[in-house]
Amino acid sequence: MKKFFEVEKFSAQGKARAGIMTTDHGSIHTPIFMPVGTVASVKTVHQRELSEDIKAQIILGNTYHLYLRPGMEVMQQAGGLHKFMNWKAPILTDSGGFQVFSLASSRKMSEEGVKFKSHIDGSYHFISPEISMEIQRKIGADIFMAFDECTPYPCEYNHAKRSMELTHRWLKRCVSWNENNPEYYEHTQRLFPIVQGSVYSDLRKISAEIISEVGAQGNAIGGLSVGEPEEEMYRITDEVTDILPKNKPRYLMGVGTPWNILESIGHGIDMMDCVMPTRNARNGMLFTWNGVVNIKNEKWKKDFSPLDEFGTSYVDREYSKAYVRHLFSAREYLGKQITSIHNLAFYLDLVKAAREHILAGDFYEWKNSVIPQLKNRL
Amino acid sequence: MKKFFEVEKFSAQGKARAGIMTTDHGSIHTPIFMPVGTVASVKTVHQRELSEDIKAQIILGNTYHLYLRPGMEVMQQAGGLHKFMNWKAPILTDSGGFQVFSLASSRKMSEEGVKFKSHIDGSYHFISPEISMEIQRKIGADIFMAFDECTPYPCEYNHAKRSMELTHRWLKRCVSWNENNPEYYEHTQRLFPIVQGSVYSDLRKISAEIISEVGAQGNAIGGLSVGEPEEEMYRITDEVTDILPKNKPRYLMGVGTPWNILESIGHGIDMMDCVMPTRNARNGMLFTWNGVVNIKNEKWKKDFSPLDEFGTSYVDREYSKAYVRHLFSAREYLGKQITSIHNLAFYLDLVKAAREHILAGDFYEWKNSVIPQLKNRL
Repeated sequence: MKKFFEVEKFSAQGKARAGIMTTDHGSIHTPIFMPVGTVASVKTVHQRELSEDIKAQIILGNTYHLYLRPGMEVMQQAGGLHKFMNWKAPILTDSGGFQVFSLASSRKMSEEGVKFKSHIDGSYHFISPEISMEIQRKIGADIFMAFDECTPYPCEYNHAKRSMELTHRWLKRCVSWNENNPEYYEHTQRLFPIVQGSVYSDLRKISAEIISEVGAQGNAIGGLSVGEPEEEMYRITDEVTDILPKNKPRYLMGVGTPWNILESIGHGIDMMDCVMPTRNARNGMLFTWNGVVNIKNEKWKKDFSPLDEFGTSYVDREYSKAYVRHLFSAREYLGKQITSIHNLAFYLDLVKAAREHILAGDFYEWKNSVIPQLKNRL
Repeated sequence: MKKFFEVEKFSAQGKARAGIMTTDHGSIHTPIFMPVGTVASVKTVHQRELSEDIKAQIILGNTYHLYLRPGMEVMQQAGGLHKFMNWKAPILTDSGGFQVFSLASSRKMSEEGVKFKSHIDGSYHFISPEISMEIQRKIGADIFMAFDECTPYPCEYNHAKRSMELTHRWLKRCVSWNENNPEYYEHTQRLFPIVQGSVYSDLRKISAEIISEVGAQGNAIGGLSVGEPEEEMYRITDEVTDILPKNKPRYLMGVGTPWNILESIGHGIDMMDCVMPTRNARNGMLFTWNGVVNIKNEKWKKDFSPLDEFGTSYVDREYSKAYVRHLFSAREYLGKQITSIHNLAFYLDLVKAAREHILAGDFYEWKNSVIPQLKNRL
C-alpha cells in the first residue's frame, strides 16, 4: 500500500518541500491550496469546472454548515459528502469549532463541549469532541480535523493558555472516539490534530510538541490568519514547523492571500485553504501574476483584452475585462461565476508553480521575485 | 448564396413546419427556442454551456438594457454584441419598445417616439424608430426588430387600433432608415416587422396584411403572451399565420410554457423566446418531460436519483434532486446555475423533438400526447 504522504524533495535553502499525499479518492500534489466548499458547493462553481478548469485536487467542506444543512440524516443516506455533491477527488472537513465560535448567534462553552444557537433558524445544538468526530465521520471526508477552540486576536496570554489546554484535552477525546468507533464508509478517513496557542511562542512550542506526540498522519496549525499582523503569522508558523514532524503533511488553516500562500510554503507548509479567492471574486477582485485587479473600475470599461493574458482557465481567454466589468455593473450572476473560476484557477496555478520551483531548487529566489508583483494594484 | 430561410417540410396535418435559417453566424434549425440574454448574458449560464450543454442555436439580447448598459460606445468599440460577449452563433435583438413600456420608470409617447426615464439611474432618454434601428445596428444582431408599441392586456379596441396604426407608421420609418444607412459590421442584419392588434381579429388581419406587404425576410407577432387567456393567444396566432407568408420565418415574441411552445409550433410558428425557463429556474422550478417540478419541495429531500433521468444536459446526470434541493435551501448560487442549464436544455430538446416529429410526419399526434404530461405537477 502506498504511504499516505511522501516528501519528494526538501528545499536546500529552507523548509519548503514538495510532496505527494495519497488518499482513497486520489492523490494530491503538495504544496496545495484547497478551495472552500462551505455548504457542499464551492460558491458559483460547478463540480466539473472545479476539476477540469480549476484543477482542484482537494476541496474543503465546513462541518458546522453541513451539520445544519442538509443535516446528517440526508448526508448519511446520500453515502457521504463525496456522493452527495458528486465530487470524486479528496475532501477535508474542519471540525465545526471555528464556525461555532464565529457564526453561531450565541454559544455556551463547558469542558464537555459547546451549546450554540444556529445562525440560520435559532435552533439550539450541542457539539463536543465526540459529536464533531461522529459528524465528520458521517460527512466522510478523507481528512478530518480535531475539535478545537480557536482563539481570537488579540487574545490575553492566560486565555490563550487555558484555551490551548482545553484543545489538548479535547484532542484526547477525539482520538479516543476515533479509535473506538468504526468508519461509516469504505474509504479511509484520517484525523489531523491542531496546534493552538495564539501568538505566544512558548504556548505554540508546547502545543506543537503535544500535537506531534499524538502521532497523527498529518498536523494542522490553527488560530492564525485571525487578524494578527502578517509577520506574526509567519513567525509562529515558522516556530511550529520547526517542531512538527518533517515527514508528515502540515496544514495551515485559513490562509490566505497569494503572498501569504508563498511565504507559508517557504516556512514548510503543505496545505492551505481560504475563502479569499472566492469571496473576493464575488466582489470583483481578481488575483493575477501581475497583481490585484478590481474589475469594477472604470478603467476596464473599454479594455477588450482577455480577462487575464497569463491565466490558464478558459474564462481568462473567453471573456474580456470590459465584458466582466459590464457584468458586475449590471449585477449579472455570470460576473461572479467568471471571477470565482479565475481566482481559484490562479491559486491552483500559484501552488503548482511553487511546487515546480521547489522541485527545480529555486523556490526562494522565485518567491522573492514574484511576491512584489503579486501585491501590485493594477 | 444560401437562401435565408427554407422550409424543409410542411406538415400535412396542419401549419407546423420544419425549416432552416442561414445567417452569417451560422444556421438555425426551426422551430427554435431562443434563450434570453437580456444584458449580454443568459443569466447564470456561461457562453460555453449555452453552446455545448444547452445547444442553443440563437440567443436574444434586449436593446433597452444594452442601450443603458454597457451603452453603445462600448458596444461599438467592442465590435458589436457577438464580440463583446464572445457568442459566435446568431443573435436576435428586440427593438427596445416592449421594455420602454414595461420597465422605464416613466415615459411620454409622441408620434416622433418615446421619452423615458431609465429604471437604473433615473436618467432621461429618447428612443424613436430611427434611434432603435441605429442602436440595433450598433449591437449588430443577425436579426433585429422594428420599433413597435406593444399593447397591454386587456386593451380597449380604439386604443389597440390607434396603437397598431402608430406601429405601422413607425415601421415605415424603420424600413426607410434601414435602407438609407450602411451596416456597421461585415455581417448581414435582417429586419423583422411586428404584427400588432391586441386580441381583435379584424385588427390582426389588417396588421398581418400590412406587415406581409413590407416584404421583409421574416415576420414577428407581438402583443401576445401579455396576460390574455391561452386560447386567445392560440386563436390570434392561428389567424395571423393564415396571412403571413408561408416561405418566411415567423417569430412569436415572448412565448412561453412548454405547452405554449408546442401549440404555437402547431399554428405555424418557427421562432420563440421567453424568460420563463431561466426566471422560473432561479425560483427552483424545473420543466421536464414528466411535468413541472418544484425542486424546493420537502419531497425531494432524500431523493438521490439524477436531477432529470430524461434530461440530456450534464447537470441532469451530474447532480441529484436532493443535492439541488439542498442548494436552494442553503441559497447557494449553484442551485440557480444548475436549474437554468436544465430548463434551457429542456426547451431546446423540446423544439428539437418537435422538429423531428414534423419531419417524421406525426407532429400533431405527438404534441397531443405529450402536452398533458408536460403540464403534470410532480
